Amino acid sequence: MTASPSPAKVPTRERILYATAELFRRQGYSGTGLKQVVAEADAPFGSLYHHFPGGKQELGEEVIQMAGAFFQALVTAIYDEEQETAASVRTVFTRAAETLEATGYEDACPISTVALEVASTDERLRRATAVVFAQWTDALTERLGNREKALAVIAALEGAFVLCRASRNTEPMLAAGEMAARLVTET
Amino acid sequence: MTASPSPAKVPTRERILYATAELFRRQGYSGTGLKQVVAEADAPFGSLYHHFPGGKQELGEEVIQMAGAFFQALVTAIYDEEQETAASVRTVFTRAAETLEATGYEDACPISTVALEVASTDERLRRATAVVFAQWTDALTERLGNREKALAVIAALEGAFVLCRASRNTEPMLAAGEMAARLVTET
Repeated sequence: MTASPSPAKVPTRERILYATAELFRRQGYSGTGLKQVVAEADAPFGSLYHHFPGGKQELGEEVIQMAGAFFQALVTAIYDEEQETAASVRTVFTRAAETLEATGYEDACPISTVALEVASTDERLRRATAVVFAQWTDALTERLGNREKALAVIAALEGAFVLCRASRNTEPMLAAGEMAARLVTET
Repeated sequence: MTASPSPAKVPTRERILYATAELFRRQGYSGTGLKQVVAEADAPFGSLYHHFPGGKQELGEEVIQMAGAFFQALVTAIYDEEQETAASVRTVFTRAAETLEATGYEDACPISTVALEVASTDERLRRATAVVFAQWTDALTERLGNREKALAVIAALEGAFVLCRASRNTEPMLAAGEMAARLVTET
């Protein structure tokens, strides 16, 4: 018996959540089938309905919550590395650009694809994405002391992810970051 | 025989394109089935492969091109209503907010959902979305005289669509519009 944790020790439920989050980010909600989820999670098919009796919708809701919280923690940690507001905002966008490039433009916002897919088609999942965006907005509003600016900065980041992934180029992210950094230095 | 055009006079090929564009905007690419397309287009199933021998991918590519050109023409017309740059930019965002509200948050960017879905999964469709965003960027760069600002403004608009559709609230669009209008007045 070894003291170091092995991937196989990750409980099935968590493996299913992580695999689903990864698939949603790459191919969205509709494009992700439950058979693919259990294959990626290396889990028996029956375990999915055991852990998520509500099926894909329940799984989707938990993934949105988990991925939203994870992304918020990540971005907040990057933001808080810097002392000064404009530098913090610029660093978030620069780091996002670097991550996009390093991951072949796959690792972007974990919930925006799903958010757009479900906005008019699945009210329960739409609400879950709305809660995540509201939490991000609150966290940034607290730091900027201005809700309108927080919303504008998050919009710029989300839209830049769309443009960068489509063009396979980081230019929109850096341009959006420059705009956002200017905005937060204005009074 | 009447002189006024009737909806039934719209050729089958166009009816299929319009119906698909509408379905993509509401529910995305993966969530749209070809049976639903022909039902909404009131077209026989066989006509789909007659007009689009490449099936869903070929149809998707044409819809992205058509919807991208249509949206560009619409936004450009709104932009050009105003004489002054900041007013033009602000009007585009305000009009987008009004349209979102008037359509129950359904009528947003016609290609962003598909763009995120296909970015890592379908290279042909990804390229089609990249071409559309490049055309929008060129059109706005020409008006602003600055490519970086054009990219930032389009990112803000795209991201605001995501946040507004998720939250069913126009606040992010108006905040993003304010940021974009400030950006284009800076030297």
